[in-house]
Amino acid sequence: MARLTIKDVAKMAGVSFQTVSLVLNHPEKVAPKTRELVQAAINALNFIPNVAARSLRNISTKTLACVMFNGSSYDERSERIQDTHYNNVLQALTRAADRVGYTLLQRNLMSDDAASLAYVRDLFLAGRIDGLIAMVTVAGHPVLSELQRMGFPCVIYGMADPQFHHVAQSDRLAALSVVDHLAQAGCRRIAFVTGPLKEHSSEVMRDQAVTTSSEARYLGYLDGLDKHGLPLRSEWVASGDWSLDGGYRAAKQLCSARQRPDAIFLGNDRMALGALKALHDLGLHVPGDISVVGFDNMRYDDFSIPSLTSVNVPMYEMSEHAVRILLDCIEKRAPAGLVQRIFPTSLVVRDSTRVPN
Amino acid sequence: MARLTIKDVAKMAGVSFQTVSLVLNHPEKVAPKTRELVQAAINALNFIPNVAARSLRNISTKTLACVMFNGSSYDERSERIQDTHYNNVLQALTRAADRVGYTLLQRNLMSDDAASLAYVRDLFLAGRIDGLIAMVTVAGHPVLSELQRMGFPCVIYGMADPQFHHVAQSDRLAALSVVDHLAQAGCRRIAFVTGPLKEHSSEVMRDQAVTTSSEARYLGYLDGLDKHGLPLRSEWVASGDWSLDGGYRAAKQLCSARQRPDAIFLGNDRMALGALKALHDLGLHVPGDISVVGFDNMRYDDFSIPSLTSVNVPMYEMSEHAVRILLDCIEKRAPAGLVQRIFPTSLVVRDSTRVPN
Repeated sequence: MARLTIKDVAKMAGVSFQTVSLVLNHPEKVAPKTRELVQAAINALNFIPNVAARSLRNISTKTLACVMFNGSSYDERSERIQDTHYNNVLQALTRAADRVGYTLLQRNLMSDDAASLAYVRDLFLAGRIDGLIAMVTVAGHPVLSELQRMGFPCVIYGMADPQFHHVAQSDRLAALSVVDHLAQAGCRRIAFVTGPLKEHSSEVMRDQAVTTSSEARYLGYLDGLDKHGLPLRSEWVASGDWSLDGGYRAAKQLCSARQRPDAIFLGNDRMALGALKALHDLGLHVPGDISVVGFDNMRYDDFSIPSLTSVNVPMYEMSEHAVRILLDCIEKRAPAGLVQRIFPTSLVVRDSTRVPN
Repeated sequence: MARLTIKDVAKMAGVSFQTVSLVLNHPEKVAPKTRELVQAAINALNFIPNVAARSLRNISTKTLACVMFNGSSYDERSERIQDTHYNNVLQALTRAADRVGYTLLQRNLMSDDAASLAYVRDLFLAGRIDGLIAMVTVAGHPVLSELQRMGFPCVIYGMADPQFHHVAQSDRLAALSVVDHLAQAGCRRIAFVTGPLKEHSSEVMRDQAVTTSSEARYLGYLDGLDKHGLPLRSEWVASGDWSLDGGYRAAKQLCSARQRPDAIFLGNDRMALGALKALHDLGLHVPGDISVVGFDNMRYDDFSIPSLTSVNVPMYEMSEHAVRILLDCIEKRAPAGLVQRIFPTSLVVRDSTRVPN
C-alpha cells in the first residue's frame, strides 16, 4: 500500500490539502469545526505526519511534557495537602529539566483513550513541546504506542515496559532484599502491605512480563519468603493504597490476625508512617515487638519515631537519565533501538527494624 | 508623548515593521539574531505591545504558567525527595487548573531580573500561555510590575502585595491565634522558630506594609506575647529554614536555653516534625514537658507521634480563587481595579499541645 499523504486526508475530510497542512502545523489558525473534521480524517486513516520534516524547520521549544495517565499529583478526595508519589517524581523531573534549561509542562488525569492521544499529539504538532515523559499504569500503553509510531520522542518513567524507552527501579529485587534483612534479624512472621492492585491481579502472576511497582514489590516479597522458607499466610497480606490512612488501617488489621506478625513490610514510606502510628496506638514497641520497613527513603524517614528502615530509590538520578534519553531522541543522537535503564536500589537500615543476628 | 508604535521599534532596530510584528506574534519564525536586535529595541524603548488586539485573534492556549521567583519546588542540596511548600502549592494549583481544563506549565529558579522578564514575556507573546501565577519573595516584584504594565494577566499566590492581584492567607492573625491557644493552656515561656528571614530583616518592622509569610508569622507571635503579657527573650527565638533538619536543630538549641521554653511554635509543619523528633531524642514528653505547634495542617499531622496541633491554610480553596481571578482577567470579565483576597486560617488542636484550662 502506498504511504498515505495529506492529500488522502484532505480528500476524506473534504478540504484542501493546504488546510490539512495548516491543521498539522498551526492548528491555532484553523476554525475549531474544520480542525475537528481534519482530525477525524487523520484518526480514521491512521495518518502519520512526517515529523522529521517538521522538526527540521522548527526551533526547539525547550519544553517537555510530563503526563500521568490515569494518575494524579494530588489527592482528589482530600482537602488537605499530602505528598504523593507522582508529586515526588515531578519534583525530581523538574530538577532534571531545570538543569538542562528545559521547562516542564505537566498534565494530570489523562485517560488512556483517543482524547488523550489527540491532546498530546496536538502539543507536539503545535510545536509546544519537544518530548514527553510518561507515567503509566498499564503495559503497552495505547497512547504511547501511537505517539511512538508517529515518531514523537517519549520515555516512560517508573515501569519497565519493553516496548518503550524507559527508566525504572528494580522493585522486585529491592523487595527481596527487605525480606533478606528481616529474616536475618530473626523475623519469621513477615507481613506485607501492597499498593493498589488492579482488579484482575489480586492473583499476581509470577511469570508476567511487565508489572507495576505494586505488583513487583509483592512478587519480591514472595521470592523472599520462598528463599528463607518462611510461611505465606493470607492473613499476613493486606491491600493498601499508598496513603497514610491506608497504612494505618492495614497495620491494625494485620495485628488482629490470630498470630500477630513480627514484621510489617509496607510498599511505600507513607503507608509505613501510618503503620508506625497504628502500632504506637496499639501500645506495641517498634522494633521490640514488631519491625517496620517502608519503601522510597523519603527525607522524613530520619525523623519518624522510630526512624524508618526503607529502600532508597534514586529518583533524581533516574529523572536525569529520563531527561537525557529524551533529549538524545529529540536531538537525533539516540542510537538505533530502545534505551532502557533499570536502576538498582539500596536498603537503608534505621531504628524501625531489629539488628540482624 | 505620542504612544510608541512598532514603527519606532523597527526604526531603532534597523528592520522593517513587519519584522517587528513577526517577532511579537511568531518569534519562532524569526532568526535568533534579528530577534535579539528587535528585543533589544523593545527593551530600550520600553515598548508595550497591544496585547488586547493580539488576544482578539488568538485562540486560548488553555495553559497557565506557574513561576517561582527565587524559589524552587525541590531541595537543591539534597539527593532525597522531600515535600516543600512550593510543591504543595503546585499540587493545589494543578488541581485547580485541572478542574477548569487548564494545563500548568511550571518554571523554577527564575531570578528577579531582565532575563526572567524576557522569558515570561515570550511565553505570552508566542501564544504559549494565557496567564501567570507567581510566587515571589519580595514586594513590588520588578518582573511582575513590567508584565502588568504590558497588560499580561498575572496573580500572586501567597503574598499580600497591594500592587497586584493576589490571594494570600492571614499569617499574622493565625500566629496570634496560636499564642492565644498556648497562653490559655497555661504556657508562659513560648518559643518561636522562624522561616528564612532576609538579611536586613532580622529586625522585622512591625509597621512594614508587605511581609513574607515568615515575617508575618513572627509578627503575629510578637502580637500574642504582647497581648498576654508574656516575655520575649532572644534565647527563645531561633531561625529556621522550613526544613525537617532546621526544626530539629532549632528545638535542640531552644531546649539548651538557661530557662527551657514550655512551648515551641514553629513556622511550618516540616520544622515541627523535626522538633518532635528532637524532643523525643532529648527524652522530653510532648505535651507534658513542652507543647509543640506547627503551621500548614499537612495530612501527616494526624500521624506524627504525638499528632500535631497546626494552623490550617486553605491551599486548595486559595488556588481555586487564584485560577478564577486569572481566568477572569484572561476572559476580560474582571472588574476594574485589583482583586485581592486574604483567606482566614483556623487552628486545629491535636495531641501536641496541652488542653486549655
